[in-house]
Amino acid sequence: MTDVRIAGVGLTRFGRHADRTGRDLFAEAALAAREEAGAPRDDFEAVHYGNFMGALAERQGHQGPLVAEAAGLDAPATRHESACASSGVAVREAVRGIRSGEHDVLLAGGMERMTNLDTAAVTESLAIAADELFEVRAGMTFPGAYALMARAYFEEFGGTREDLAHVASKNHANAVANEYAQYRREVSVEEALDSPPVADPLHLMDSCPITDGASAVVLVSDEYAEEHGIDAPVAVSGTGQGGDKFALQDRRWLNRTPAARTAAEAAYDDAGIGPSDVDVAEVHDCFTIAEVLALEGLGLYDRGEAVGAARRGETTRDGRLPVNLSGGLKAKGHPVGATGCAQVVEMARLLRGDHPNSDAVPDARVGVTHNAGGTVASAVVHVLEVRG
Amino acid sequence: MTDVRIAGVGLTRFGRHADRTGRDLFAEAALAAREEAGAPRDDFEAVHYGNFMGALAERQGHQGPLVAEAAGLDAPATRHESACASSGVAVREAVRGIRSGEHDVLLAGGMERMTNLDTAAVTESLAIAADELFEVRAGMTFPGAYALMARAYFEEFGGTREDLAHVASKNHANAVANEYAQYRREVSVEEALDSPPVADPLHLMDSCPITDGASAVVLVSDEYAEEHGIDAPVAVSGTGQGGDKFALQDRRWLNRTPAARTAAEAAYDDAGIGPSDVDVAEVHDCFTIAEVLALEGLGLYDRGEAVGAARRGETTRDGRLPVNLSGGLKAKGHPVGATGCAQVVEMARLLRGDHPNSDAVPDARVGVTHNAGGTVASAVVHVLEVRG
Repeated sequence: MTDVRIAGVGLTRFGRHADRTGRDLFAEAALAAREEAGAPRDDFEAVHYGNFMGALAERQGHQGPLVAEAAGLDAPATRHESACASSGVAVREAVRGIRSGEHDVLLAGGMERMTNLDTAAVTESLAIAADELFEVRAGMTFPGAYALMARAYFEEFGGTREDLAHVASKNHANAVANEYAQYRREVSVEEALDSPPVADPLHLMDSCPITDGASAVVLVSDEYAEEHGIDAPVAVSGTGQGGDKFALQDRRWLNRTPAARTAAEAAYDDAGIGPSDVDVAEVHDCFTIAEVLALEGLGLYDRGEAVGAARRGETTRDGRLPVNLSGGLKAKGHPVGATGCAQVVEMARLLRGDHPNSDAVPDARVGVTHNAGGTVASAVVHVLEVRG
Repeated sequence: MTDVRIAGVGLTRFGRHADRTGRDLFAEAALAAREEAGAPRDDFEAVHYGNFMGALAERQGHQGPLVAEAAGLDAPATRHESACASSGVAVREAVRGIRSGEHDVLLAGGMERMTNLDTAAVTESLAIAADELFEVRAGMTFPGAYALMARAYFEEFGGTREDLAHVASKNHANAVANEYAQYRREVSVEEALDSPPVADPLHLMDSCPITDGASAVVLVSDEYAEEHGIDAPVAVSGTGQGGDKFALQDRRWLNRTPAARTAAEAAYDDAGIGPSDVDVAEVHDCFTIAEVLALEGLGLYDRGEAVGAARRGETTRDGRLPVNLSGGLKAKGHPVGATGCAQVVEMARLLRGDHPNSDAVPDARVGVTHNAGGTVASAVVHVLEVRG
């Protein structure tokens, strides 16, 4: 089967870009990815793009052809939306297009604008990722939902706010070196513990920020890379997607994420690996508890074991399995529609050795990215591997 | 290569369902399609779903897992959005999933709620399919944009309002027998001509209505159909997608739709047919002029020739190439996100022989569906064929 190679990657700095349009942000990321790949514009056969709340933030739907044009491409373009997993899905659709033999050169990516809205409007806009009838109208917000998940986790498996504070502190430490990160500053465990409460047990420093940004990757078949002399040592060797009941109330568990488990098992099978082969991971830490749930969903930890991972130093940059060396959603930022592809960008650079934190994983061969939508009603997992 | 078969189809009646939720509408269509197909629920491997303006109409994003659950399925689900071509894209993604050998049983479909909004809100919501910065803020609406396209067509190729009135009259005549259509009544050419002006030269009877509705198809591989004894005589033998500059002002022509041409050529190549093989067509007549542009984009007519097709009786139910036997968007209705898949549903029934208008095309073997987004900045074309 065709091997899918990452030929180029691009990001905007994540942060506040309230004065720039979405098309402008995406163009920056896409043109960076295109420049690195070097593939001629006419070779691009499709654009797969993720965006979540553009209808509310920019009054702009139908962004597929809009951003293809911004990226300088004529290729057919589709927007995929799966809440915070939107560009994870976009990357997945591109991977499938090359895998099937249909395409050789594709652009995938995502973009979100959020900071142009006031905080109340952002909160209301994010809420459309939850069930309007049975969650949002009852007052549910995402901090509240993840707080429920944290409480259910603590109740069944143990764990403390201090465990979660270690996750925040770890991810902030990782972001310091990342020039694309929104918050490049250390946060101590004490500072995280002392930050204002948001929804008990989650505090401000358990929560990712509101962010603008864009991400893009150029994916090519290995045949195309070889033929055109493109240096593309990292492959997307596995892809998987999972779903769950939409509303939390309809789930069997609040403290497990079967959608992530389904996606991970599919991606591992696809790549022919198992969780024990994973050297490094980028996971969807929209809240600190989400990183814990992700590590268990990915099978990297047994149930109830991941909550202490950061505290024990296992997932820190000098640990046995560094997690969120980019800084994660927590410190790098979370421009919703850009996040899933951005994880792939960061992982590709980590594995290629040109990420500022690559020195933490000099021998890494296998990385996994985990992108979740809503309260993990949807999840996309990718396996990236160094070839050659 | 795997042959993609249509194992089941479902529709809601198109029209006014302001008192029903989107999930309820989609469930009706999806369960009808599932019942017809008979495939066990656990065999479904993914759901591909189209919706355009749910963030505005229902404050509901992340509809993939929501509608999968409404359809009684656990499978991973993705929403695809390409304005009025959203569920055309959804069907296409499903077709690609089976073609690639990845999947055997998929649900594709779409839904839109519109009539719960007042007319001004619907107009503003539809406008997000156009360029917010360079079209919408300048006052562009879709009737205005298609009026420009009609004027440019008349200017270069000739044609009159009466030609367009024949398109409306034809499609209304076709809708009379269709129990799913919004407007099941005849409209004479005179009535169409005398209807109130909307944007010169387009009048009310040149314009599709505002509609709620849902559509769904179950697609299976031919191996699965055979193995499970599923009677699925119609195949999706070709799929294609095309794009264009997003805003009208950036296009070379206002009176041609290269995105449709690209999509059609790809779909014909994929199916191994040419336009002369097409027996019957469902095209995206959001305005009467759009049907004309579609027939030329599909290569079914030379440039400048399609405008008189309905008047000459070539595309009427007793013509050589019946077009929009469903009633089209014009009379059947246009619940945006449901339309592309609904065209596939109607065409499948026409070819199977169980559509109320199948008697107009008793020998038809090859049908084509044409679904367009915005001012045809995006287009999806499918070829359906009778097997056996």
